[in-house]
Amino acid sequence: MQHEFTITTSGAGLYEFTSEVTRWLCTQGDGLLTLMIRHTSASLLIQENADPDVCRDLQAYFSRLVPPASDPAMQYLRHTAEGPDDMPAHIKAAMMPVSLNIPVKDGRMRLGTWQGIYVFEHRSAPHRRHVAACLMPLG
Amino acid sequence: MQHEFTITTSGAGLYEFTSEVTRWLCTQGDGLLTLMIRHTSASLLIQENADPDVCRDLQAYFSRLVPPASDPAMQYLRHTAEGPDDMPAHIKAAMMPVSLNIPVKDGRMRLGTWQGIYVFEHRSAPHRRHVAACLMPLG
Amino acid sequence: MQHEFTITTSGAGLYEFTSEVTRWLCTQGDGLLTLMIRHTSASLLIQENADPDVCRDLQAYFSRLVPPASDPAMQYLRHTAEGPDDMPAHIKAAMMPVSLNIPVKDGRMRLGTWQGIYVFEHRSAPHRRHVAACLMPLG
Repeated sequence: MQHEFTITTSGAGLYEFTSEVTRWLCTQGDGLLTLMIRHTSASLLIQENADPDVCRDLQAYFSRLVPPASDPAMQYLRHTAEGPDDMPAHIKAAMMPVSLNIPVKDGRMRLGTWQGIYVFEHRSAPHRRHVAACLMPLG
Repeated sequence: MQHEFTITTSGAGLYEFTSEVTRWLCTQGDGLLTLMIRHTSASLLIQENADPDVCRDLQAYFSRLVPPASDPAMQYLRHTAEGPDDMPAHIKAAMMPVSLNIPVKDGRMRLGTWQGIYVFEHRSAPHRRHVAACLMPLG
Repeated sequence: MQHEFTITTSGAGLYEFTSEVTRWLCTQGDGLLTLMIRHTSASLLIQENADPDVCRDLQAYFSRLVPPASDPAMQYLRHTAEGPDDMPAHIKAAMMPVSLNIPVKDGRMRLGTWQGIYVFEHRSAPHRRHVAACLMPLG
């Protein structure tokens, strides 16, 4: 009842993996699903998966709210050894979830109609992101 | 041990439902309570419930941090079909919790003295918000 | 399988307590660990614990994103009775996690290589922060 998902990213942005989670759950039963991303420069989000502009706008907003370390407004940052996207990635990882919990009933996540599960990659370079999963059986 | 709370909102702001949760739990026993909001344009918060100015100030701050799409600074947003408050609501829903976990002991949530549970409505129009609840029994 | 950690803080900043959690878990076994901070003016974070500049930069960023109530840009805040750092602390507590979940396998948290667990103190004065812990056994 523990598992690990691997999501391959190709730069900053949102990567949906709802269907991978759905597939794994259908062999597991009911309970409480917990997901935790094992990194400090990417986040887990539940967000709208109907209009792709939502993901695009989320990325656009947060890249403005937390500009790269090369931006004049961000000159106070010190953790810049890995590049201008390094520390902003940690900041975004502090502002957005590292863990998510989703009740599961009759083998299905109790998500709303438009809710999808995403890795939000904050780094510019491609990464392999590992998400620890755990299903606590109920009843 | 699964349940759904429905919270009726009348525009952007915080709506406390701690007492509804307390009432439901007292018939359930001990364990781990999980709440998950089934929407991507509202959040769940644990916040101070002593001074109502805290909720007012939270609303005032986040409406400035994420202005409506009609604001000149937000012209880059594309997901605006449902109105100027649509995409800012998704952004706030990414920044604030979609799920909460509260340990329960002797039938009571282990909240701090001033902690209350809220739906933070990010849309301008009234909505009915659904919160999935799940109590995992302990011991 | 319930516990409470007490973390003593000496002003705004990040305070790691990963080793305290590790020590407690090794006597408990496997399952799902939940941590919840019992306050509304401090947060729980999972963040990088390799380079201390990450914690310093997080503190520097959020103190700029949410300036004290004495800042001209923040004159609209009303909840200021306890001082200029009071309401900004609540705002930061809304933006960063109040609860965390970490799957535990073979008695060890499934954290990534560089992940540590922190209390992020948002108030200027020293505080004693209480973190409720709960381990749900698995299998």
